Amino acid sequence: MPSSPRCVVLLSGGLDSTTTLALARSQGFALHAITFRYGQRHENEIDAARRIADVFQVAEHIVVDLDLRQFGGSALTSDIAVPKRRAVEEMSNGIPVTYVPARNTVFLSFALAWAETLKTGDIFIGVNAVDYSGYPDCRPEYIAAYQQMANLATKTGVERTCPVQIRTPLLDLTKAEIIALGLEHGVDYSLTTSCYDPLPTGACGSCDACLLRLRGFAENNRPDPAPYAQQP
Amino acid sequence: MPSSPRCVVLLSGGLDSTTTLALARSQGFALHAITFRYGQRHENEIDAARRIADVFQVAEHIVVDLDLRQFGGSALTSDIAVPKRRAVEEMSNGIPVTYVPARNTVFLSFALAWAETLKTGDIFIGVNAVDYSGYPDCRPEYIAAYQQMANLATKTGVERTCPVQIRTPLLDLTKAEIIALGLEHGVDYSLTTSCYDPLPTGACGSCDACLLRLRGFAENNRPDPAPYAQQP
Repeated sequence: MPSSPRCVVLLSGGLDSTTTLALARSQGFALHAITFRYGQRHENEIDAARRIADVFQVAEHIVVDLDLRQFGGSALTSDIAVPKRRAVEEMSNGIPVTYVPARNTVFLSFALAWAETLKTGDIFIGVNAVDYSGYPDCRPEYIAAYQQMANLATKTGVERTCPVQIRTPLLDLTKAEIIALGLEHGVDYSLTTSCYDPLPTGACGSCDACLLRLRGFAENNRPDPAPYAQQP
Repeated sequence: MPSSPRCVVLLSGGLDSTTTLALARSQGFALHAITFRYGQRHENEIDAARRIADVFQVAEHIVVDLDLRQFGGSALTSDIAVPKRRAVEEMSNGIPVTYVPARNTVFLSFALAWAETLKTGDIFIGVNAVDYSGYPDCRPEYIAAYQQMANLATKTGVERTCPVQIRTPLLDLTKAEIIALGLEHGVDYSLTTSCYDPLPTGACGSCDACLLRLRGFAENNRPDPAPYAQQP
């Protein structure tokens, strides 16, 4: 039996990246998951990524340490307050304070280095341009430019032995559509964590990420199975 | 007096990046130097970068830890032998084993994150397409694609407040021309280290990097002031 083609999947432990992992699996790829410990405040994201990698029986899971705190500039990596209880319309208005400078560019670059070593060009990332359009590095034009650059950057891209494909299966989906797709593919969302400001007993239920996620489940007429610190 | 515009300079401690630092200084930039401890085998590169940053009185110097060894795949970060005593023509033939997967892409991505935080778009990198054309990520088409991607990746690029410019003043110069230019700008090359395989008492004098460097000084009718383990 020929072995499955490999792919690299960026896995944060959140809802989007876990759905992306399930979609990569459904396409027959051997899964090589990469998670970043990047100075985000919550080790529970790393724990969630490890649990998810276990449940999916990935071929390999690596956790890369990198310290974006050296650069400052974001609510997720420094002491700027996480906004709470905002209307969804307000979230999409401009670039959010939770934006981490060049984050996806840094993450994709590590994924690219690993992919080249694994002799694959397939990289999955769960970016999404619909619900949260404030991040410049979640837009289709950014992804296209990244892919073009990547094919000039690597030996295997230049030689066309493993052309780089940045695969973004969630790009045009709403949060509700992502959840519906994940449920179809058997994702257990109780394993995932999305909250920007979790409490010891669960997600806060009021940051942008919690609100978007809760709305997505509500639109599917399903309760969110993830633990919340208080009934959202 | 208005303060100088800032720039980020990738500083490895080698001849090319040090010349680039001198050129950035000559253009009136405040220098923010970034060095990577990336699992390369030689801490002396980091020491050289620190000395050079001191001598240039940079505004800031950060050393970023990242472990590319997790990915394997290069003589500079694993146990593949460094080639010795090759003819220069042979060096340019194909992609060398010292190629590190996606290295410049990873490095530029950190520089980009820092640049955005510093509110500048100017990033200097001492890549050079002439003497050592085997690295895909040292070619002008790669740099152009990186810059285009970067301007879609960042808040300040998208808003055009700090358009990203990847500045490559050495791109079309031979090693001899780089050295001549550096000497004009007062670079003390005894501070720099280029060797892929240094001994405790100095550079090996026979790896590709030593041979290219020695030829560059010879073409300038100058001795290389850097320490060598034996008379090259």
